Amino acid sequence: MVMHCLTRPGDAILVDGNRHYTTFVAAERAGLNIIEVPHSGHPEFRIDVNEYEFLIKNHNPRLILLTYPDGNYGNFPDARRLGQIAQEHNIPYILNGAYAVGRMSISMEEMGADFIVGSGHKSMASAGPVGVLGMKRKWEQIVMRKSTRHGNKDIELLGCTVRGVPLITLMASFPYVKERVTHWEEQVSKAQWFSDELERLGFIQLGERPHRHDLLHFDAPALYEISKRVREKGYFLYKELKERGIWGPQPGLARSFKVSTFAADRQQLGFVIDSFNAILNKYS
Amino acid sequence: MVMHCLTRPGDAILVDGNRHYTTFVAAERAGLNIIEVPHSGHPEFRIDVNEYEFLIKNHNPRLILLTYPDGNYGNFPDARRLGQIAQEHNIPYILNGAYAVGRMSISMEEMGADFIVGSGHKSMASAGPVGVLGMKRKWEQIVMRKSTRHGNKDIELLGCTVRGVPLITLMASFPYVKERVTHWEEQVSKAQWFSDELERLGFIQLGERPHRHDLLHFDAPALYEISKRVREKGYFLYKELKERGIWGPQPGLARSFKVSTFAADRQQLGFVIDSFNAILNKYS
Repeated sequence: MVMHCLTRPGDAILVDGNRHYTTFVAAERAGLNIIEVPHSGHPEFRIDVNEYEFLIKNHNPRLILLTYPDGNYGNFPDARRLGQIAQEHNIPYILNGAYAVGRMSISMEEMGADFIVGSGHKSMASAGPVGVLGMKRKWEQIVMRKSTRHGNKDIELLGCTVRGVPLITLMASFPYVKERVTHWEEQVSKAQWFSDELERLGFIQLGERPHRHDLLHFDAPALYEISKRVREKGYFLYKELKERGIWGPQPGLARSFKVSTFAADRQQLGFVIDSFNAILNKYS
Repeated sequence: MVMHCLTRPGDAILVDGNRHYTTFVAAERAGLNIIEVPHSGHPEFRIDVNEYEFLIKNHNPRLILLTYPDGNYGNFPDARRLGQIAQEHNIPYILNGAYAVGRMSISMEEMGADFIVGSGHKSMASAGPVGVLGMKRKWEQIVMRKSTRHGNKDIELLGCTVRGVPLITLMASFPYVKERVTHWEEQVSKAQWFSDELERLGFIQLGERPHRHDLLHFDAPALYEISKRVREKGYFLYKELKERGIWGPQPGLARSFKVSTFAADRQQLGFVIDSFNAILNKYS
């Protein structure tokens, strides 16, 4: 929607290499030339926002976007520095906070962004599909412009906005979300503790260290070695975890895995750690 | 979505004068030049599809759209004839069946349309917001094209499709909808009977006669006369109906009203008729 309003087909958009696939698809739909700011590669996958500056000069983008944090590694690039760069070059700046808004305190203004995107079903305890969009007042006239014939209908929303269960659960989530963002530091320390414990078992945490988000991604070379010599191949991990009452990993995948520690307490996470330990011992 | 795929900004689209506001807003969003085929005006508001032919020659539209039936008067223009016209001129033809699909049997092929639109929350007993889109196979490659980088993601759907309650209730509605469309003739005769009874009270049914849809629109000059001389002005009608347990009319409106007879049985509708009669007598 923002891309559609602020660009024309053929314009360039600068996005981070960790962007969600929807960023790419939305830009494709708007007919944009998508320039990706590369990440640092394995194992940290960091985005250095200073690289935007160089690419701005080369590609003259109409929009820049940063994913904060990304959904693969839970990395937080320097969104504030990018705000300065965006303002220096006078380019509208979208902050994709789908994994931040609702989990932690975040201020579009402090980051110097023009738009901030939040997801109701990703980080706001609400039923999907629904999201929130914040913007600087100056964009309201463009993004929220009304129909010339139907003056109370938003063109970009096709008049027909969210309703029913997604809307009601989003509204119902607000008091809970407002309270829970105050516990973000506990969430981060719980994630760091969990990561330390898994690394003690030989797993390798990808993304930033120390980690600052509950989304975690691990390489698991020991599990991969096991998968190569057992009859079930990668499925052994799914089976072993399921037998212990742990659900979630994609069946067949044992080389690396993603996990969020958000909704589990330390006791539950302790059980996950112990289970990984038992599985490694069983096959050693 | 269809408009976005099949047109470029500045192209013309031909739509009927009874089109839903969302038709207009979607065309505005796509930057189209919107040409309306006028209706016949009060009281029938008919669309003569033969007028499309003349306007096609003048405006060379990239798309044509017909609302079948419209949501204001429940009129059924000659969708089949328009299918012939569309094919003769080789212009893609969208049939907006938001008030048909789920209520009655309808075949896109029989109408000669390229696309048919249905609404989950309007005519399919499902929670909104959700709808269905049918199309001729030849359009699939364009409308359902995938992302170049994310091969299983639809560009026009931004990858992120309907989920949760809207999707589940839509699916749950299918067996019920499949059964209920077989009773459409009963629905039509019930609507015609209700319309006859209200006309006997002096109301004037707008739209086609005989009426072929449960959506009805009446002018109510007798109620309007009352509203001009009572203290509550137009609100008297809302109050009187509410006291009788009848909800729905917009408070303050007494000059004309819209009603659907779909979900009420003849006994309930009889009570509505008797109530209007009693209100007219009370103030006469």
